Amino acid sequence: MKIIVDAFGGDNAPGEILLGCAQARKELGVDLVLTGDREKLLGCAKELGLETDLAGMEILDCPGVLTMEDEPTAVLKEKADSSMALGLRALAEGKGDAFASAGNSGALVVGATMIVKRIKGVKRVAFAPLLPKSQGFFMLSDGGASVDCRPEMLLQFGLMGAAYMRDVMGVENPRVGLVNVGTESHKGDELRHQAYELLRQRKDLNFIGNVEARDIPYDGCDVAVTDGFTGNVMLKLFEGVAMALMDKFKGVFSQSLKNKLAAAAVYGDLKKLKKSLDYNEYGGAPIMGAAKPVFKIHGSAKASTVKSALRLTRDYAQSGFVDKIAQAVKPQGERQDG
Amino acid sequence: MKIIVDAFGGDNAPGEILLGCAQARKELGVDLVLTGDREKLLGCAKELGLETDLAGMEILDCPGVLTMEDEPTAVLKEKADSSMALGLRALAEGKGDAFASAGNSGALVVGATMIVKRIKGVKRVAFAPLLPKSQGFFMLSDGGASVDCRPEMLLQFGLMGAAYMRDVMGVENPRVGLVNVGTESHKGDELRHQAYELLRQRKDLNFIGNVEARDIPYDGCDVAVTDGFTGNVMLKLFEGVAMALMDKFKGVFSQSLKNKLAAAAVYGDLKKLKKSLDYNEYGGAPIMGAAKPVFKIHGSAKASTVKSALRLTRDYAQSGFVDKIAQAVKPQGERQDG
Repeated sequence: MKIIVDAFGGDNAPGEILLGCAQARKELGVDLVLTGDREKLLGCAKELGLETDLAGMEILDCPGVLTMEDEPTAVLKEKADSSMALGLRALAEGKGDAFASAGNSGALVVGATMIVKRIKGVKRVAFAPLLPKSQGFFMLSDGGASVDCRPEMLLQFGLMGAAYMRDVMGVENPRVGLVNVGTESHKGDELRHQAYELLRQRKDLNFIGNVEARDIPYDGCDVAVTDGFTGNVMLKLFEGVAMALMDKFKGVFSQSLKNKLAAAAVYGDLKKLKKSLDYNEYGGAPIMGAAKPVFKIHGSAKASTVKSALRLTRDYAQSGFVDKIAQAVKPQGERQDG
Repeated sequence: MKIIVDAFGGDNAPGEILLGCAQARKELGVDLVLTGDREKLLGCAKELGLETDLAGMEILDCPGVLTMEDEPTAVLKEKADSSMALGLRALAEGKGDAFASAGNSGALVVGATMIVKRIKGVKRVAFAPLLPKSQGFFMLSDGGASVDCRPEMLLQFGLMGAAYMRDVMGVENPRVGLVNVGTESHKGDELRHQAYELLRQRKDLNFIGNVEARDIPYDGCDVAVTDGFTGNVMLKLFEGVAMALMDKFKGVFSQSLKNKLAAAAVYGDLKKLKKSLDYNEYGGAPIMGAAKPVFKIHGSAKASTVKSALRLTRDYAQSGFVDKIAQAVKPQGERQDG
């Protein structure tokens, strides 16, 4: 298993990426190919005492870096010499089994679509993060790759999401819900009406109907299907509300000596809670629908998160997920496995 | 000031509605008109010892109740004899200055639009709840009244929201943001692009551009403008995430004796925090754009929340908001106040 990693993507590149890669190589049994400026990488490895580790990895040398400020389409043009663009091309050319980057999500979606290309039959790729619910995690599909959607795209987001949750995450018979403004089948706009009908007709999908956003954090479904606009707003609101609330709690606990003492008493348990809410546990999210595994690592990932992401990237590649998706998105009658 | 109240709307009607009305009448200096089954109301008042209070209110007698299970359009047809429908007609006929109901939101939106009618020039009404942010509250406009929107509707949601925050809530020069998947002006779908341009052109609006949902709980804006589909998903996700997180905290604090003692120490401060997050503080949300003030009380409201809602309904009616909206939604050149 050979994973190509964008060594210059993300807030903490290249240091934390390199550290994470060094850990992943030792613990996960994967070969790594780094893309980016060779001289800078060597210098960074020297600084961190990772020279031997880096010596065990392949480097694809390139000068450029695609930043968060770049337009997504820059990955195809102005920044075609960047570590992200080179990694995507290397994946497309078969120089590795998967590609992972903590860089600009928009550019990664464009690159996955235009350079790696989509699986035959997939209309749009989906960025599919996992978010905490009362028990475990649910997948948001699409979390922001495709802002303008047609009903058949939402169907595919559901099919791909269910396949991922089953084959990569090990969730049995994942429950797929359509995010809507009410649970009744007639709720929502025209896009939802048509998507509902398409989802309902798929006998190979455990479609549980419409789900309200209020119920999703309470284990309302395993895959929350929505268009990329709504999904991206949901993803960011989820993050914003959780962070703001955690900050308010912190404020209470540092208000007085008495409160600080109380905080100290529950510190360990609160830390566990924070960890259970931490969507960094999975390190990132797949760009589902690309013809080869492309994985988005969290932009702010540090070494341990990079390693977690690479574990999931490995599982993703090993699962044969891409073939399963090609199978899953076929019209119902054409499927080989029924 | 005479407020018409749907005595049979909401989860706790008529008891808590009646209790809340009795308090409001004493404390807020308003006259109240209740709609609903007179016999049942008299019986309920007797049970609660509110006979004298009820004697001071007018009753518009009608047999029916519109429930949460009814279709929104039932308010016009099958349930035209309901306490909600009668209240809306009474408002339209000038039997009071405002109407408040804790019943079915969808039906209230339909009734506000079709029975009370819209202000001349207003294309769609907006359901506009206030949600907590790091400091104070922000308005979500539209929170679910209009799921299919055109750009000029989003402009009006912004204009109405700004007027409400200024004239009813006393926020100086309210910052209006367009909910989007990124802050740059080119972000989002076609609806957002066009709405952005319309909002930008209004010199009489403090439009601060696109806002990301992540930043809204951190005081990102005073009025978050969005289509009713996205807005309703946001409203419910906000609620779901906050409640799920509070539950997790509660779980930590009841885990062990040590944790219970710690919880006891910070109990008062946590309760204050909970109150600061409680969007029930405002008791509900206006249906902005209706030709006369229509106010939605929270469905689960108890007496004190009903009273808060009636205070806001009174302020809403007193502010002359409806005339201001009529003025605000005029094309820029036609405005009298510039």
